[in-house]
Amino acid sequence: MLLEFRRLINEVAARADVLRSVCFAESLCTSRNGHRCSDARLAHSKRVDDLSGAISSGEHELGTAVQEAWLDDRELEVVRGRVPMVYVEAVPVRLDEVGQVTHVGLLLRAMADSTISRAIVSGRVLWGETVRQALQRHLDKDLGPSAFPRLPAAPAPFTVVEYMPDPTRTGYYDPRQHAVSLAYLVAVEGECEPSQEALDFVWISSEEAASAAVSAEMTGGQDRIVRLALAYAGRLP
Amino acid sequence: MLLEFRRLINEVAARADVLRSVCFAESLCTSRNGHRCSDARLAHSKRVDDLSGAISSGEHELGTAVQEAWLDDRELEVVRGRVPMVYVEAVPVRLDEVGQVTHVGLLLRAMADSTISRAIVSGRVLWGETVRQALQRHLDKDLGPSAFPRLPAAPAPFTVVEYMPDPTRTGYYDPRQHAVSLAYLVAVEGECEPSQEALDFVWISSEEAASAAVSAEMTGGQDRIVRLALAYAGRLP
Amino acid sequence: MLLEFRRLINEVAARADVLRSVCFAESLCTSRNGHRCSDARLAHSKRVDDLSGAISSGEHELGTAVQEAWLDDRELEVVRGRVPMVYVEAVPVRLDEVGQVTHVGLLLRAMADSTISRAIVSGRVLWGETVRQALQRHLDKDLGPSAFPRLPAAPAPFTVVEYMPDPTRTGYYDPRQHAVSLAYLVAVEGECEPSQEALDFVWISSEEAASAAVSAEMTGGQDRIVRLALAYAGRLP
Amino acid sequence: MLLEFRRLINEVAARADVLRSVCFAESLCTSRNGHRCSDARLAHSKRVDDLSGAISSGEHELGTAVQEAWLDDRELEVVRGRVPMVYVEAVPVRLDEVGQVTHVGLLLRAMADSTISRAIVSGRVLWGETVRQALQRHLDKDLGPSAFPRLPAAPAPFTVVEYMPDPTRTGYYDPRQHAVSLAYLVAVEGECEPSQEALDFVWISSEEAASAAVSAEMTGGQDRIVRLALAYAGRLP
Repeated sequence: MLLEFRRLINEVAARADVLRSVCFAESLCTSRNGHRCSDARLAHSKRVDDLSGAISSGEHELGTAVQEAWLDDRELEVVRGRVPMVYVEAVPVRLDEVGQVTHVGLLLRAMADSTISRAIVSGRVLWGETVRQALQRHLDKDLGPSAFPRLPAAPAPFTVVEYMPDPTRTGYYDPRQHAVSLAYLVAVEGECEPSQEALDFVWISSEEAASAAVSAEMTGGQDRIVRLALAYAGRLP
Repeated sequence: MLLEFRRLINEVAARADVLRSVCFAESLCTSRNGHRCSDARLAHSKRVDDLSGAISSGEHELGTAVQEAWLDDRELEVVRGRVPMVYVEAVPVRLDEVGQVTHVGLLLRAMADSTISRAIVSGRVLWGETVRQALQRHLDKDLGPSAFPRLPAAPAPFTVVEYMPDPTRTGYYDPRQHAVSLAYLVAVEGECEPSQEALDFVWISSEEAASAAVSAEMTGGQDRIVRLALAYAGRLP
Repeated sequence: MLLEFRRLINEVAARADVLRSVCFAESLCTSRNGHRCSDARLAHSKRVDDLSGAISSGEHELGTAVQEAWLDDRELEVVRGRVPMVYVEAVPVRLDEVGQVTHVGLLLRAMADSTISRAIVSGRVLWGETVRQALQRHLDKDLGPSAFPRLPAAPAPFTVVEYMPDPTRTGYYDPRQHAVSLAYLVAVEGECEPSQEALDFVWISSEEAASAAVSAEMTGGQDRIVRLALAYAGRLP
Repeated sequence: MLLEFRRLINEVAARADVLRSVCFAESLCTSRNGHRCSDARLAHSKRVDDLSGAISSGEHELGTAVQEAWLDDRELEVVRGRVPMVYVEAVPVRLDEVGQVTHVGLLLRAMADSTISRAIVSGRVLWGETVRQALQRHLDKDLGPSAFPRLPAAPAPFTVVEYMPDPTRTGYYDPRQHAVSLAYLVAVEGECEPSQEALDFVWISSEEAASAAVSAEMTGGQDRIVRLALAYAGRLP
């Protein structure tokens, strides 16, 4: 019996990569549901974690290497309490013919607490995904396939935002997690069609976007990100 | 029978890769359910994860909220395979009287593969820790208490570096993980005393720091970070 | 006939706008040709143009090459109507122990129209002077010899401001000229003693510095520069 | 006779703007050529100063206000010895589908000393012209009407370059003048047709653009600007 077990362990050890995923997923399932959910094992490679939980077309392009490392919602929740998450924010803007920002694009979203908020494009960087791929994916998902966003050539964000579960720490607040978010200004040239999750998408003038009225409709500190973006573009009133 | 089993477990423990996954998943589950491994829970809050494994004085200042979320080495390894880690890099520089970079500071480190490399200051951002606190902590640890590094006022890094376990993805390579690292130029005014882990610390001229000879002594793409830092400072030859 | 002509010329001289052009052109021509206005030549090297008209100690360090190219007030006024002037702006800030902006330093100045305004450090880059030298010179002059300003390592300003004689063009207004100004955030560690020209110098909190009340005390668009500086530092409320 | 003259002067004084140009140009001409060149007066309003001396279509859009302030070549030469000139540089780049720089566009120019050099787009900012307008004008002139350059949304350049007549001062050399130049990365999406002045225009890969071979074909320090641009885009090898 012990020899058998040892042989098994050896075999398992040789397949370390596989084991890790399975063990992790399984024990999480077990403890939560109080029973062994071996189905989780099979499902694991198919499920996709994403900020919003939705599967976007962009994700499929990332290939197998990325998908294997993705987390399901329960795993993600555990990890979120252990390490800061990497996020990207994109402030969509319209430019005039000499490249000057004229309008800011804001989504209208139904929030978890059933209020409605204006929001910029924001989401998690997945394991194995580059920051650019994550930006492109979240922009595609939130603004639709005809938005034609133009990612900036430089990798440096215009600011770094630190979301904390404690709203008093940095002024950027996310009850779920500590996230370090790289914020970019993204010129959008096409037509934006908000995804199902968003109720609407509107272009508002840069002056209005910096106003107290619009700020009051945003949460988590995203109104500050909009103002920092306008300042970066030299367009803060 | 139990003795045998315990011996077996010990043996398995030597196969660290596998065991770490299991332990992490299990301890997470059990601690959540409020039974079985209360020891793990107590031990957890005392253990400190850190890039280098060392406990620095800076960490104690971060307070309880941060410490509770830290991971031990085994947990960290599992999480590293699930989400990108948040890192900071600091390129230490000396400035002349009008603020122009004259020298770059490089550590001499013994690497895991027993080679010796030149390196910049680099390390993980912990859960609950701000990017600034992480920068300060790693600078203190690597350059000693008399370095007096001056963190930049702006939160935006001069570049973002994406380390991947696949060296061909981005050119920045870390066999352990996918890390998204925010790179800053940090003026250092005091005297640097490398920590025990570093074999030495030297100031080299900005021209020399960009040379092929010095680049050849760096690994993982850190030589490129030095060149990007010099370019940002307008000092790339 | 000649007397008449001279009288006429005197009369015209009262129409300063016109005369200045002529004088400038003439004195340039004559000094080049080596005759007639040798006095002008001598006077020229002693006179010092500067934003404020004051001679600062910093200027002497720039050496002969620079001094020879300086303009007297009349010449400067003509050139100002011909090409954009190069300016630098410095927003003086206090940082906390992790490099975060806590306060902004503002001068209190009596303006040409005898009103009193709050102002940041601002001034012209002279011929042959580097941007860093100009920054250092204007900081020394406005904040005194014990301010110990720390010029940023990177040559790129956080924003570029375009002052125009037409206040509707860019929102930055200078009735005297078209100036392209490079704006920098400058950490100041020492004690500031405002020069004679400034009535006072105060440190105000970053929140207050962005307020409507403080903005109302600034002119030419400098209040916007302060807000852009705070946004760059991630400290705009 | 005198009365007539006085009436004339009054009339002229009323048109001060015009007079200034004329007086300035005339006296310069007089002294240089030793005779009165009244032709200069007529020619003045038609001539256009520009880095290259060419009249581009873009300039006409700037309107009368700007044109009146332009200098002819001789005036410009005088002013160049008095104040630093404001310049812009544009490094034209091709981006891939996620916004990453793949190629750098370089002009091939016959230089004043009859050598041939590779060059980036570079030129003076005129009085009354914004930095954006100057960028657009020089890009149009050098790359043709189908280039469709995309000016960056942010006004801050990626670096500031200081050209000096003394090649040892900053490493950026212009024998004609002291120029402070704002350098921007400009994504170009259309087809480039070099103007008559340029012999050719080629796209070369970002790796090649940073090579010693290509650097050797550039003058005045523009090879460094290309490397700084690549570093800013995270694409310096």
